[in-house]
Amino acid sequence: MIPVIEQLTEKQRNEVKRQMEIYKQGVQDIIPTEELETKVAKSILENRPLKIKLGLDPSAPDVHLGHTVVLNKLRQFQKNGHVIQLIIGDFTGKIGDPTGKSVARKQLTTEEVEHNAKTYFEQFGKIIDMEKVELHYNSKWLSKLNFEDVINLAGKITVARLLERDDFDERISTGKPISLHEFFYPLMQGYDSVMLECDIELGGTDQHFNILMGRHYQEKFGKEKQVAMLMPLLEGLDGVEKMSKSKRNYIGIDEAPNEMYGKSMSIPDTLMIKYFELVTDLKKEEIDTIKTDVATGKLHPRDAKMLLARTIVHMYHGENAASAAEQNFITVFQQGTLPDEIPVVIWTGADKISVIDLIVELKLLSSKSEARRMVANHGVKINRVKVEDSTLIVAISDDLIVQVGKRKFVQIKRG
Amino acid sequence: MIPVIEQLTEKQRNEVKRQMEIYKQGVQDIIPTEELETKVAKSILENRPLKIKLGLDPSAPDVHLGHTVVLNKLRQFQKNGHVIQLIIGDFTGKIGDPTGKSVARKQLTTEEVEHNAKTYFEQFGKIIDMEKVELHYNSKWLSKLNFEDVINLAGKITVARLLERDDFDERISTGKPISLHEFFYPLMQGYDSVMLECDIELGGTDQHFNILMGRHYQEKFGKEKQVAMLMPLLEGLDGVEKMSKSKRNYIGIDEAPNEMYGKSMSIPDTLMIKYFELVTDLKKEEIDTIKTDVATGKLHPRDAKMLLARTIVHMYHGENAASAAEQNFITVFQQGTLPDEIPVVIWTGADKISVIDLIVELKLLSSKSEARRMVANHGVKINRVKVEDSTLIVAISDDLIVQVGKRKFVQIKRG
Repeated sequence: MIPVIEQLTEKQRNEVKRQMEIYKQGVQDIIPTEELETKVAKSILENRPLKIKLGLDPSAPDVHLGHTVVLNKLRQFQKNGHVIQLIIGDFTGKIGDPTGKSVARKQLTTEEVEHNAKTYFEQFGKIIDMEKVELHYNSKWLSKLNFEDVINLAGKITVARLLERDDFDERISTGKPISLHEFFYPLMQGYDSVMLECDIELGGTDQHFNILMGRHYQEKFGKEKQVAMLMPLLEGLDGVEKMSKSKRNYIGIDEAPNEMYGKSMSIPDTLMIKYFELVTDLKKEEIDTIKTDVATGKLHPRDAKMLLARTIVHMYHGENAASAAEQNFITVFQQGTLPDEIPVVIWTGADKISVIDLIVELKLLSSKSEARRMVANHGVKINRVKVEDSTLIVAISDDLIVQVGKRKFVQIKRG
Repeated sequence: MIPVIEQLTEKQRNEVKRQMEIYKQGVQDIIPTEELETKVAKSILENRPLKIKLGLDPSAPDVHLGHTVVLNKLRQFQKNGHVIQLIIGDFTGKIGDPTGKSVARKQLTTEEVEHNAKTYFEQFGKIIDMEKVELHYNSKWLSKLNFEDVINLAGKITVARLLERDDFDERISTGKPISLHEFFYPLMQGYDSVMLECDIELGGTDQHFNILMGRHYQEKFGKEKQVAMLMPLLEGLDGVEKMSKSKRNYIGIDEAPNEMYGKSMSIPDTLMIKYFELVTDLKKEEIDTIKTDVATGKLHPRDAKMLLARTIVHMYHGENAASAAEQNFITVFQQGTLPDEIPVVIWTGADKISVIDLIVELKLLSSKSEARRMVANHGVKINRVKVEDSTLIVAISDDLIVQVGKRKFVQIKRG
C-alpha cells in the first residue's frame, strides 16, 4: 500500500506540515507522532475531520488557566476544521466512590452533573466554539453494560498492565490500599474512545496511562488506534504544585480583570515563558522574541510579566479591560497607594517558604498563630493579592511585596 | 448478650457436641470453629436448619472419589436435618474465558450447562438425598448485575487482597499474566453466598481463598458470615497428584464394580487410612481399629486394602456387587489366572516412578518407545488394572504386579 502522505499533492503536503507544526507546539508528548501525521494526512486526503477527544470530570467545573492548556490545543484543531468531542464522565460521577474513603469523589445527582456540565460549557465558550462541539455523556453507553460485558472488558487487560500506572504502583509498594473498582476508571476512559472512535485524545501528562488505555481498547475492539497528545502540567501561582482549585494556586478564567492581572504578576519569573506558551494565544515567533529579549536584558522581566498579565486579561475580558487592569496595577502597586518608602529586606532564605513562616521571618508579626489569624481575617497580601489559604507556599522573587494589615509592608530583594 | 450455647438445655448441648464431632471428622480446616459451633447451637435453639453451600463448576460433570470427600461431608449435615445448597456456576460457564488462552474454560451453551448439571445430580444422588437439596444457578442473579453493581462489588475489595491468592501471587512473581476478569471469579463466588445467605461453605483446601471471599462479602453486605469448611484434597491412584479426570488417576463413582475394586487395590499403602477417612462411610471408631490393627501387624495391609476396596464398591454398587468384585479379584489376581510362578524383583529404586521407566527398569521391554507403544495398545497392567496413560506415575508398593502383554509378569518386593 502507498503511504497516505505519498498520495497527497504538494499543496496538501504543505498543509499537513503546517498543521503538524501548530499541533506540536507546547506539547509534552505525542504518542506516536507518525500516526498523528498519517491521521492529519488522511483527513486532508479524504476531506474528513479528525475527532479530538477531551474527557471531563463532572465534579469540578471551575475552569482555571490550568485547564486552558488543553483547551487552547483543542482550539487549534477546531480552527483547522476538526471536530472536538467533549465527554462528560457522568457515569463515574454518578457512581461516586464506593469505598467512601475519598471525600473528593462523592456521588453526584443527575441535576448536579448537568449543572456542572453547563458551567463548564459556559466557560469553555470563551476559548472554543461550543456550537461546533460534540457533547457526550458516557453514561449513555456505560450504564448499559451488564456483568458479562464488564467481564469481557476486563478480559482484555492484564492486572500487571494496570499496576504499571504510577499511582497504583506507588500505592502497592507503600502498602496503601487500591480498591478493585479503581481499576475500572481507566477501562471506562478507554472504552469511551472505542465507542466514539476518537482519532486523538488530549490530556495533561498525568493522563498518560489513561489515554493509552484508549489505544489499547480500540485495538482490542478492532478499531483504528487514537493518538495520545499529552500537554505539560501548568504549575500554579506557587510555582511548585500543579494548578488546581484545591491548592488555591489558580487563576480562574472567570475572575475579575484586576484579580487576574495581579495573580498573573505573582507567578515566579521562571514560569513566565511556560505561561506564555501554554496559556496565551501568542504565536511561537512572538514568544521566541520575548524569550530572547529577556535573556539579553533588552526586556525587563517585570515588563515581560506585565505583557503576560495583560495578554491573559485580554483573552478573557477584552482589550479595554486589559488596559484598565494594567493601569490599575501600575497605580496601586507601582506608584500610588503604597507608602512612599517600603522597607526593603535582603532575602537569603529558601526559594519557597510557607506564607506563615515568611511573615514571621520578615518580623511582620511575632508568632505563627498571629500570622494564621491574620490570613484567616484576609489581612495578608502578596504582591497586592489577598492570601486565602494559610498553607500557601510563596515563591520568593525580586521586588515581592508582602503586606500585613493596612500599614505593614516589606519589599524583598534577593541576597 | 448471653452466648447462644448458654441458652441451651443440657440435652441440646449434647446434641451440639454430637454434631460438632461428626463435622470435624476428616476436615482439614474450619474457619472459624467457634462460629460453626455457634451456628449449630442457634440452629438447634431456633429449630432452623443451616444452609450448607457447595459451588459446582458446570464444565466437568464426571464425579469421582475426589468429589465425594465434600459430598460425604454434605451428607453428614443433611442427615442432621440441614439444607444443602448446590450452586451451579453457570454464569461463569456461559461467559467462558474472554482471553481465549485457556482451552479448559471454553464457553458453554445453556444446553451443555443443563446437561452437565443433570449428570452431576444423577451421580450425586448416590451420596446425598437430591430430593432435599436446594438447586441454584448463579446466572439468576449475576446476569442481572449492571456496570454500576459491578463497580459497587469491586469497591468492596482491594487489589492487594486479591493478589494474596496463591496462584495470583505466584503468577505475578513469575511474570505470568493475570487477566483482570479473573479477579471476578472469587468475587462472584463470594456474592453467591451473599445472595443465598449461606451458613457454611464446603470445598477443598484449594478453595480456601474463594470461600473466604464469601465471608468477606457477606460482612460487606451486612449479612451473617458463613463458616469456611475445607476438606483435604484426595491424592489419586498415583499417590501424588490431586485426584482429577485430567490426570487419569481417578476412580469414577460410575465405574463398574471390578474396575472400581481393582483401582482401589492399586492405591499406595500410605494413602489407605486417608481413603478410609475421606471416601468411605465407616465410623471413626472402625477406622481407628483398622489403623491400630495394621500398625500392630494384626491386620495385613493387603487385607485392609481389600476391606477398603470392598467398602467403596459397596457404597456405589451394593453388597452383592462388592462381594462379586472381591471374589473376582481373588480369583484372577491372587489365585487363578496369573501364572503359578511370577518372577519376583527386589526393588531398590525410587518410591514413585513413571510407568514407562518402570517397564524398562524391570527389563520387561527394552526401550521406552516400545513401552509407550505397549501402553498405547492397552497391553500394560498394574495390579491387573489397565494403564491408560503413558505419563502415569506408579507408587511402588510390596507385591505390586506389573504385566506387559499376555505373558510377561513381574512381582515387586521392596528391597
